[in-house]
Amino acid sequence: MSPESDGEAAGSVRIGRGAIAALASAFPYPPGRVFLVSSPGVLRFHGGAVRRALAGREVVEIAAEDGERAKTFDTLRAILDAAIEAGVRRDDAVVALGGGTVTDVAGFAAAILLRGIAWYAVPTTLLGMADAAIGGKTAVDHPLGKNLVGAFHPPSGVLVDPDLLATLPPDRFREGLVEIFKGLLVGNAAAARKMAGRLETLAGTREVDDFLGAAIRVKLAIVGRDPRESGERRVLNFGHTLGHAIEAASGYRGWSHGEAVAVGMAAALSISSRTEGFPAADALVLAAELVRFAGKAAPKWSEALEGALSKDKKGEAAGLTGVLLSDWGRPVMRKVPPAEWRRSLEALSGGEGTMPSPDAS
Amino acid sequence: MSPESDGEAAGSVRIGRGAIAALASAFPYPPGRVFLVSSPGVLRFHGGAVRRALAGREVVEIAAEDGERAKTFDTLRAILDAAIEAGVRRDDAVVALGGGTVTDVAGFAAAILLRGIAWYAVPTTLLGMADAAIGGKTAVDHPLGKNLVGAFHPPSGVLVDPDLLATLPPDRFREGLVEIFKGLLVGNAAAARKMAGRLETLAGTREVDDFLGAAIRVKLAIVGRDPRESGERRVLNFGHTLGHAIEAASGYRGWSHGEAVAVGMAAALSISSRTEGFPAADALVLAAELVRFAGKAAPKWSEALEGALSKDKKGEAAGLTGVLLSDWGRPVMRKVPPAEWRRSLEALSGGEGTMPSPDAS
Repeated sequence: MSPESDGEAAGSVRIGRGAIAALASAFPYPPGRVFLVSSPGVLRFHGGAVRRALAGREVVEIAAEDGERAKTFDTLRAILDAAIEAGVRRDDAVVALGGGTVTDVAGFAAAILLRGIAWYAVPTTLLGMADAAIGGKTAVDHPLGKNLVGAFHPPSGVLVDPDLLATLPPDRFREGLVEIFKGLLVGNAAAARKMAGRLETLAGTREVDDFLGAAIRVKLAIVGRDPRESGERRVLNFGHTLGHAIEAASGYRGWSHGEAVAVGMAAALSISSRTEGFPAADALVLAAELVRFAGKAAPKWSEALEGALSKDKKGEAAGLTGVLLSDWGRPVMRKVPPAEWRRSLEALSGGEGTMPSPDAS
Repeated sequence: MSPESDGEAAGSVRIGRGAIAALASAFPYPPGRVFLVSSPGVLRFHGGAVRRALAGREVVEIAAEDGERAKTFDTLRAILDAAIEAGVRRDDAVVALGGGTVTDVAGFAAAILLRGIAWYAVPTTLLGMADAAIGGKTAVDHPLGKNLVGAFHPPSGVLVDPDLLATLPPDRFREGLVEIFKGLLVGNAAAARKMAGRLETLAGTREVDDFLGAAIRVKLAIVGRDPRESGERRVLNFGHTLGHAIEAASGYRGWSHGEAVAVGMAAALSISSRTEGFPAADALVLAAELVRFAGKAAPKWSEALEGALSKDKKGEAAGLTGVLLSDWGRPVMRKVPPAEWRRSLEALSGGEGTMPSPDAS
């Protein structure tokens, strides 16, 4: 049961093609009902398989839209209302089937229903499988920023079935590749070197099972050591400090999460090579690949960007902590003044090895 | 800091007349700002003392109405919005000043702001001092039931200053006495025997410091052993299974929490003497005192009551667990079928030693 499982903050993860068929037996469940939270779109693709897998259980379906725009307090409240109207009890469990939005919001609902009931994640996007559904961070957005309200509430089980990715649109697949590459860069040098230079190829072949598995193992190891993000876990925000600022400064329009994080990683690599000893030639090549893969030129510095950077919730009063790399797989954290982010963005758009291509998503 | 403090689920409690003056030095605080959540009514009485005590800190005041009717999702959201609009950071802290509603809602807000920031409780009611503010259970109500959405998020400090009770209306004081007596009945036989027969007297003299301290110690000990209410902590619900049902069946009108719990305790004592070996003569006298102190005749059995009992969130699918006593200070838990609650209510209203008096609140 999740409420007692701070010691198992990473949760139990099952990975395998076709694993969805064994959803009901993959994990121990509490004896009550299953509240299946998912969107009509996802249910159209995967509802049949999930309902068959849960055929032996009493299932209550709760509709929740997917996509960042639905990651709101109102969506949360609708899930809470539906569960409460169905008479939710402490021995019921939530199963969240969908992308990062649905697992984040449904997981948060499970965290606060009756002060915490068990939940299980079945991510249907590559981003969700590699990152969002792993590790127990749940949240909703606020008009003033992302993930500002939430809870640490580890799922009691995460089922990762890459077969579910067959229906994922290309831009969503690309976004997941960026997160996988991020995980490997901070936690698995060998796998990161293997993946480098292949982002575009992998977006075509979709043969990512090995890299996905490696990225999940990186995240599980880090989260296991620091479930509450009081220290080391923050290295998983590599590329996200600037990435979130880019998304916020654009009003969450025009930049997808994956595009913004790819540019954020490129900028962080640029700083890393200047100040942390990350190999300069590698940084140039990687930054160029990331910006090219994002398919967008790095944004110009702006007041909106500076304002958004000052609101990132990871920062304490003294300034924003950035994640940099001293080498492949070797993250370091330190305060990065806005001027350094600005300089790195100017370097990226100044033609130092970067060749932005037209929007590729 | 609270987010890491599951091992200190009971929190740090300071008790003393005049302790409010030392609020700023009573506990360690994170280095950021203080979000003081309170109601205009409470601030009118105690705002001066609290502001003086926090004079060295940067304080952001957030208004939140007190009273069960304000214990809603909307109040929660208003607190979250105000904190986010003020740019809340992880090194800020919430100080909740007020009754059980304000400490429950503000504590819940602290639990989910940025996935959990530290909070401190300064209860201003006897109920809050004896019970609500102690132990880390936070929540809001839902139209379909009380405390259905919330979190376990222990305060990093609880400051109990009985001097603040000078302005508490008589009916609120009586309600607190009921909770104190409940705590002693389940956890301190000697103090409970001393308090028995004196409820009405204590409501007049208000000399309750010793009983209050004893009740807090009972709660701290139990919560320390079972912070997540997976077992023993449920004994603190003595009188509350039926009490909550009475409140819900009345639509939260006509019965105060204290009145309903007093009658719930009387009914539980009646059952305890029939089936658990609680001394029958003592049960009769105690039940009579509790019903008389509630100032209300025990309610007639009704469909609304039976329906409300079946929705209590403490119950798992098989039925409702009741807390009974095998002796003074010796709680036992077992399933209590509705028929037994019904019979106990009929016994109470059947004149078996009970003599309801006119409304005394």
